[in-house]
Amino acid sequence: MGRDSYDEQLDRLTGVLATMSRDASAAIRTASTALLDVDRSAAERVLAGDAVLDRLRAEAEAMIPEVLVRHQPVASDLRLVVCALRIAGALERMGDLAVHVAKVVLMRHPVGVVPEPAVPVLTAMAGAATRIADKTTVVLATRDRLDAMQLGLDDDEVDAAQERLLSMLVTDWPYGVESAIDLALVGRYYERYADQAVNVARQVVYLVTGTIRL
Amino acid sequence: MGRDSYDEQLDRLTGVLATMSRDASAAIRTASTALLDVDRSAAERVLAGDAVLDRLRAEAEAMIPEVLVRHQPVASDLRLVVCALRIAGALERMGDLAVHVAKVVLMRHPVGVVPEPAVPVLTAMAGAATRIADKTTVVLATRDRLDAMQLGLDDDEVDAAQERLLSMLVTDWPYGVESAIDLALVGRYYERYADQAVNVARQVVYLVTGTIRL
Repeated sequence: MGRDSYDEQLDRLTGVLATMSRDASAAIRTASTALLDVDRSAAERVLAGDAVLDRLRAEAEAMIPEVLVRHQPVASDLRLVVCALRIAGALERMGDLAVHVAKVVLMRHPVGVVPEPAVPVLTAMAGAATRIADKTTVVLATRDRLDAMQLGLDDDEVDAAQERLLSMLVTDWPYGVESAIDLALVGRYYERYADQAVNVARQVVYLVTGTIRL
Repeated sequence: MGRDSYDEQLDRLTGVLATMSRDASAAIRTASTALLDVDRSAAERVLAGDAVLDRLRAEAEAMIPEVLVRHQPVASDLRLVVCALRIAGALERMGDLAVHVAKVVLMRHPVGVVPEPAVPVLTAMAGAATRIADKTTVVLATRDRLDAMQLGLDDDEVDAAQERLLSMLVTDWPYGVESAIDLALVGRYYERYADQAVNVARQVVYLVTGTIRL
């Protein structure tokens, strides 16, 4: 085990979180390709990639006692720790939610999950979720409070798309109950994914400003 | 601010988590009453009670820097902190999921969400979820590894009930797509609630044994 300086250790921790964020973003992007292009191999890549996020989360968590125990931490270090743990947890969960989307694709393949009339709303939802994930990655790097606040708008877009999707499903949906349930759950996974991304940004803002409102 | 001993501070932290666990358990019990008895006031109680869980989580998190900064923490203390944060997060989320169930009830009231044929499976699901929550409260108090391992069985029961529910919904469900979606989502909320309760138990086991497998 190296005898790195405290700052080097914190940099490494932040680096792991940044990698996790990029991976969580790639996961939802690939899952959305799987969903909208009925692409089985994309879905399988999402499943295969998830172990990396799980491992990185464990790595981030394992670093923390190590970082703190060798140093006399001050309150702001400990706040960093609380935030880092929440961020790692949220990013791992984002990966899980991308996996849930991919699993629905695999379960129905070669039949597609998204019938023609639902393509626009799912495309909008996937687009907004991916944008949020990308911005989250940026926020983690820049720690810019204004970047973080923008995420709320994209999150509203995901919620609005989920509302549109649900009303479409309950008014004269000709593709059957199974299809409606699949889509309602897929919409829910995107919604939760976006919520978690906003959580990440919120933690970053908390880290920077000491207050948690976005 | 008091100058309590380290042990007293840890006891207070554990006490907050125990209270959260009892509240999260009460929330799913009340939400299940709301769902199965079409009881509007029960649903409203779940919504009203959720702020307490949110506040307790914030309280638990706020304690942690305070506990650590005054002391030279050792590795096991820091492990406790990582666990306490995850436990507080999971318990707050359990409360949120009970709120989601209650909101579906309120949205459809005075119409019931659970048509007659789905009553047994939802009753089983609610019963298993409530049992898990109660056992989680016990595990938090006893830190008994065997108690914690039992939770896996109840969790399997929730998952199996969700499977039964979904197959019921997709094979000749005469109550319409909206009802099917409501129930699929309600089932999902119970499933996630149970997952989070198992997470709590897993953290407790990790705290006691240093390994995380259940």
